[in-house]
Amino acid sequence: MSLDPKRTIAELKELRALTSDENGAQRVAWTDTWLKARAWFLSKLSDLPVEQHYDSAGNNWVTLPGASEKALLIGGHLDSVPNGGWLDGALNVLAGLEVLRRFASEFHGRPPVTIRLVDWADEEGARFGRSLLGSSAFAGTHSIAADRGRADRDGVKMEDALRRCGVEIDRFPEAESERKNASAYLELHIEQGPVLESLGLPLGVVLGTKGVERHNITFHGQEAHSGSTPMNARHDALAAAAKLALEIRTIAGKHADAVCTMGSLKTFPGIVTAVVGRCEATLDQRDLNAGVLAQMYREAQEASRRFAAEEKCTVEWSRLWNIEPVPFHPELLNLCEEAVRETSESTHRMPSGPLHDAAEVSRAGIPTVMMFVQSLNGISHNKIEDTRQEHLEMSVIALDKLASKTVDWILK
Amino acid sequence: MSLDPKRTIAELKELRALTSDENGAQRVAWTDTWLKARAWFLSKLSDLPVEQHYDSAGNNWVTLPGASEKALLIGGHLDSVPNGGWLDGALNVLAGLEVLRRFASEFHGRPPVTIRLVDWADEEGARFGRSLLGSSAFAGTHSIAADRGRADRDGVKMEDALRRCGVEIDRFPEAESERKNASAYLELHIEQGPVLESLGLPLGVVLGTKGVERHNITFHGQEAHSGSTPMNARHDALAAAAKLALEIRTIAGKHADAVCTMGSLKTFPGIVTAVVGRCEATLDQRDLNAGVLAQMYREAQEASRRFAAEEKCTVEWSRLWNIEPVPFHPELLNLCEEAVRETSESTHRMPSGPLHDAAEVSRAGIPTVMMFVQSLNGISHNKIEDTRQEHLEMSVIALDKLASKTVDWILK
Repeated sequence: MSLDPKRTIAELKELRALTSDENGAQRVAWTDTWLKARAWFLSKLSDLPVEQHYDSAGNNWVTLPGASEKALLIGGHLDSVPNGGWLDGALNVLAGLEVLRRFASEFHGRPPVTIRLVDWADEEGARFGRSLLGSSAFAGTHSIAADRGRADRDGVKMEDALRRCGVEIDRFPEAESERKNASAYLELHIEQGPVLESLGLPLGVVLGTKGVERHNITFHGQEAHSGSTPMNARHDALAAAAKLALEIRTIAGKHADAVCTMGSLKTFPGIVTAVVGRCEATLDQRDLNAGVLAQMYREAQEASRRFAAEEKCTVEWSRLWNIEPVPFHPELLNLCEEAVRETSESTHRMPSGPLHDAAEVSRAGIPTVMMFVQSLNGISHNKIEDTRQEHLEMSVIALDKLASKTVDWILK
Repeated sequence: MSLDPKRTIAELKELRALTSDENGAQRVAWTDTWLKARAWFLSKLSDLPVEQHYDSAGNNWVTLPGASEKALLIGGHLDSVPNGGWLDGALNVLAGLEVLRRFASEFHGRPPVTIRLVDWADEEGARFGRSLLGSSAFAGTHSIAADRGRADRDGVKMEDALRRCGVEIDRFPEAESERKNASAYLELHIEQGPVLESLGLPLGVVLGTKGVERHNITFHGQEAHSGSTPMNARHDALAAAAKLALEIRTIAGKHADAVCTMGSLKTFPGIVTAVVGRCEATLDQRDLNAGVLAQMYREAQEASRRFAAEEKCTVEWSRLWNIEPVPFHPELLNLCEEAVRETSESTHRMPSGPLHDAAEVSRAGIPTVMMFVQSLNGISHNKIEDTRQEHLEMSVIALDKLASKTVDWILK
């Protein structure tokens, strides 16, 4: 049984038919539709000489034992956001399954190293607001205390939702045992951005996942009557925030792949007849280089204080969340580049702005690399998320080549 | 009985004690507290040789007949916003009452011209969103059709609330008959802004009420992932709006007293991890000169289109409301200036950003002027609204001088 990328696409469509509605994919983790997707996936394993089990964090492990106990891990996630796309996460799992089939067939059930396919539990964090849940438990970076009290929109507690799926939060740390013998981790993913499409490239090598600084920024001015307050007597909190909304583009623009985003801005009292007395903004800054990220954060703070002073306002910051950059393994980056070049001639190295389970695996010290396949229009987390069929097929082929190269590398 | 400005202040405090709570004045039109204020005001008339009646729009007319049927009108409003101040509107009425008393006393009940004090109904429009209601009916600019269907927050229809106070919307036009013999209109008001305080002046001459252009402006860009979308691939609707928020200050800054305000800005989807796909802003532009107002409106539109293009967005405008500038009567402006100068030595001519009943009276063709008295910290529509006691006393004196000068002018 040789590699059949067309089968991967057929299976992706099968999964879509099973777990989507008119608004897109509905495989939100810990829901019945997600469990249905996982049951469907198990049915695909019946002819393979594999061992399968769920770990204590709900990650699904499919193991093809090899001559060496050293293990090559290939990962993805079947869960989706609500109204999601057909590829995000699922492509990774089903392309990995195809690679697993090829190894099982080529080596008559016993490849040189152990091949393990993992479907991570709750990558998206769509229901409880905690993404990379299963891979965090695997990596040992998960904090049980922080998550136990989370609840979904309907008030269902995270702890109870997981228990219904057979997962006990208290036993999360046991998932760390799956790290035993893990020698490398590979993940294929749709880009979810417009870069490869704009370059006319099907595939890209992912340098790592960007670090993130995420903050709330509040400018305090003075609410005042829009008719009776002269322009020069105003303490306009919106003006200070508007200056920052523009300045963050200059701050990001000094660095090749850096991004800074003001995604939300709220005005108070927010009425047509009053100068804005208070303005609340969010800032999301990302870069693969920790020094660049720190510089951008510092520059944004300095700019915000300068603009506040100019507008006779004050400003305060509060951190929402942050994570350090996770650069992938240099030798695996080279192998990934070889695999991409052999499949599509030209290649491109790029950081990932979105986070992925691969970041958690890499933080656990396991050599890791990711490969991107082009997204159409850069759109993801949406039912119109799509990738050209020939690009999907190339991504399966390139992942397979990367897996072979990585097996050789593990044995070196 | 000579003019007693201290009595005006005592009566304002009496009214405050009767109609305020810990959050400020609660004399919202068509409520029981407003009716209580009006009943209290009637009790102040018992010793005066005046005729009193409510017109068909609920305006309260107090008439001291004079030797001539030609009438000097002095106006104000007892209604307040919820949690309002003790001076806005009420100072006008009670200072006017003091002037009326002085005329009655000095001329033994028969001044040279008829003196009419009017307490306009529902200046603020706080409950049904329609300000200058009573004075609009008087001026004949009121549209019954547009207002009949209005309702308050509790779903009470405007029509029913007015009927409970004895006012039938269908009979509004009858209030126009009060215009008969009206020869001039005077209104004293707190400034509600910081200009006189910043100049160190107690009193100012109001040139007229500014015209207003009020619009919703929506920028349409492209929602995108904040991590995966390079800066140069974005269609950031917030960036376009931020540029406009800053540019309107330049547009207003070309003209001495013009103001432009972006009071509300909303981002969609408005989440920390997404580039803003749609941004809704409000714009309020005001100037006393119709040409300036038109120029500012045109420049803001042009700027918004330029910024939309720069940010690869589109923009659409929709008018919320507009009103033309209302310049006051040139000869009355001169009389007002004389009265102010005789009371406080120096004076200042300034437009009014907020609207006032005087604008409606002026639009009806009656020679009109307003006088401002300094507000502390420019704050109004708030329980901390205040004016120094000596300035309040000066404002009563100056209004009285203006009234005498205007009587002479009417008889000229």
